[in-house]
Amino acid sequence: MRSMASLNPVHFLWEVKNRIAVIRLDRPERKNPLTFESYAELRDTFRALPYADDVDVVVLAPNGGNFCSGGDVHEIIGPLVGMEMKELLAFTRMTGDLVKAMLNCTKPIIAAVDGVAVGAGAILAMASDLRVATPEAKCAFLFTRVGLAGCDMGACAMLPRIIGQGRAAELLYTGRSMSAQEGLDWGFWNAIHPAESLEAEARTLAGRIASGPTFAHGMTKTQLNHEWNMGLEQAIEAEAQAQAICMQTRDFERAYRAFVQKEKPAFEGN
Amino acid sequence: MRSMASLNPVHFLWEVKNRIAVIRLDRPERKNPLTFESYAELRDTFRALPYADDVDVVVLAPNGGNFCSGGDVHEIIGPLVGMEMKELLAFTRMTGDLVKAMLNCTKPIIAAVDGVAVGAGAILAMASDLRVATPEAKCAFLFTRVGLAGCDMGACAMLPRIIGQGRAAELLYTGRSMSAQEGLDWGFWNAIHPAESLEAEARTLAGRIASGPTFAHGMTKTQLNHEWNMGLEQAIEAEAQAQAICMQTRDFERAYRAFVQKEKPAFEGN
Amino acid sequence: MRSMASLNPVHFLWEVKNRIAVIRLDRPERKNPLTFESYAELRDTFRALPYADDVDVVVLAPNGGNFCSGGDVHEIIGPLVGMEMKELLAFTRMTGDLVKAMLNCTKPIIAAVDGVAVGAGAILAMASDLRVATPEAKCAFLFTRVGLAGCDMGACAMLPRIIGQGRAAELLYTGRSMSAQEGLDWGFWNAIHPAESLEAEARTLAGRIASGPTFAHGMTKTQLNHEWNMGLEQAIEAEAQAQAICMQTRDFERAYRAFVQKEKPAFEGN
Repeated sequence: MRSMASLNPVHFLWEVKNRIAVIRLDRPERKNPLTFESYAELRDTFRALPYADDVDVVVLAPNGGNFCSGGDVHEIIGPLVGMEMKELLAFTRMTGDLVKAMLNCTKPIIAAVDGVAVGAGAILAMASDLRVATPEAKCAFLFTRVGLAGCDMGACAMLPRIIGQGRAAELLYTGRSMSAQEGLDWGFWNAIHPAESLEAEARTLAGRIASGPTFAHGMTKTQLNHEWNMGLEQAIEAEAQAQAICMQTRDFERAYRAFVQKEKPAFEGN
Repeated sequence: MRSMASLNPVHFLWEVKNRIAVIRLDRPERKNPLTFESYAELRDTFRALPYADDVDVVVLAPNGGNFCSGGDVHEIIGPLVGMEMKELLAFTRMTGDLVKAMLNCTKPIIAAVDGVAVGAGAILAMASDLRVATPEAKCAFLFTRVGLAGCDMGACAMLPRIIGQGRAAELLYTGRSMSAQEGLDWGFWNAIHPAESLEAEARTLAGRIASGPTFAHGMTKTQLNHEWNMGLEQAIEAEAQAQAICMQTRDFERAYRAFVQKEKPAFEGN
Repeated sequence: MRSMASLNPVHFLWEVKNRIAVIRLDRPERKNPLTFESYAELRDTFRALPYADDVDVVVLAPNGGNFCSGGDVHEIIGPLVGMEMKELLAFTRMTGDLVKAMLNCTKPIIAAVDGVAVGAGAILAMASDLRVATPEAKCAFLFTRVGLAGCDMGACAMLPRIIGQGRAAELLYTGRSMSAQEGLDWGFWNAIHPAESLEAEARTLAGRIASGPTFAHGMTKTQLNHEWNMGLEQAIEAEAQAQAICMQTRDFERAYRAFVQKEKPAFEGN
């Protein structure tokens, strides 16, 4: 049994309750920018999550009415401007490693977005598995506005899969904000909730997922991310194998026993 | 000439009329569950379809107000709980083989869904080429509710291509029902029709497709399923070859002759 | 410095102004069909665009209330009916080469569609990066109506990425028109504008993109088209490399300097 409840990160807030971990950036006066240090610490935290026995779902939560303003102009963009290629690539790979760690952490991640989610903040939402937001959520992939390309941390691969190639292209070429309503209509947000209930709704959704067969959820997450570029025949074989594994879990038996006894199954994640 | 009109399946109803085959599961009192036997017989039927000269389009139709309730709890899930890995993988591969047979049958498949389409029933709809439904259609990928993963019979590969990655993730992690309106808005259903006209509408659509160039339709189906994970350059070359083949069919010439004579072309599928 | 402003094409109208090239087919009395010659000249023009220093964005514009009626029945379909396989494949490859040239021209392309955009005309819109249209736009992938398959010039690969697999299948099997409202709801059109302002809106959008970091835009276009069939891990590494390159452009530094001085950056595309 390895626990992450006692994790005490330096660069963000961390809470584990009812098997749900909540991560919250903590510089609300600056709308929660990322720094070199918080990128690295987030990456390391998501890399540790596959081995955590006391966390089943992760919620990325806002702080002070905003989600995340992306890479800090003074603490990240300024230094980058003076770097040489070796250092630049080390940085872009580190940011990509955060997304890879999110994709590979085996637990579903729910982004709960209020206010600003821009630049790398928009990427954190995009790289989550589920996304809920408030009507005030402003999500912008604004890399173009700082002179960069839209291909940042996987955006050209992942955003079209979520909202379609044409809409993704518009957001990435113009850097404009996607409104909450657009995000809902386009399938970026799974639901819109008023700011006062956003976190409660995200926790309810997280709780619903955490009460399910969490080993099987991990398999769902792996396959959702791995099958996109498989041939359909290969994907179907991969699912036959993955689901056969899940059929040997005790949760599958628990569900069957509960059904026969007309009870609600109590899953245990094994 | 190989005919499938006289097929006399044991585990579902079968009808061939006007070059349209209609398949209907036939245990309406149980909302039409699947069993080991009906899975296998459906697989074998779709595997035979590429060689059938008297079928151009397949319609999967409801029965008694429901489409399909998925794998039967008593006849499938119960036995699976007691199986060893070799048997489990044989089962998941057989279910996957049904989807592969649907993808490779070279004839467009239209799912006409009323009432319940859940579990493997939702997969049958998803693996069809076109989908129409009633306002009462309830489609749920509820594998998670029986302790399993969402990666069943290709769902993690195919569902995101139809409705987007974020919406697919929600349905697969929660197992919740997709309402008819959601399914229409998200592109899962091509159209919603009242229950009393559902089958007539599905047959009209099937007839429209069957009256087209059916050899070319088969090429469209192959390419829609094969190109998703090709590079764009490879896909464009593949289409250049596929379309050049179609340009040597007599249906292409028939269309041109009809146009010149200001008539409607009568396609013959060769 | 290589300029394309003085290009003087035979088979379409060409204009370069404010770093925006506008292409307009010029047989409005026939709704602007394509011919063997205009296909080839368009292909060669897009192939030259990567080397043009005075063009940053391309607009495909309508003429006389229509966009493009596709391959001319008399000048293309008639001759094709009499051709042998070698010639047919040479033709389908040439049409595919036009799409490849559009994808590889490194400049964003905006299709501004009024009236008819059918057959290869629908493909020209689909293969553009952004698409705006009028309420009167009628877009149909009508290959099936001339006895051919929907797999033409990349349609089976690209259309599902834009509007989803189910909607794409319907359009390709039936050949029916997609209404302007459907196209907007489905993410095919980025916006709908009245006919009288369509071109002004397209030019405004083009100007907005042209005033951005155009070298980085070229990288965005490359990655949006190359990553679809990469694994997510490979895509993230590819973006780390691509973005590190962009971080060594002067436009990145210009954006940072402007931000520090609270000014609007003036990008120069290097």
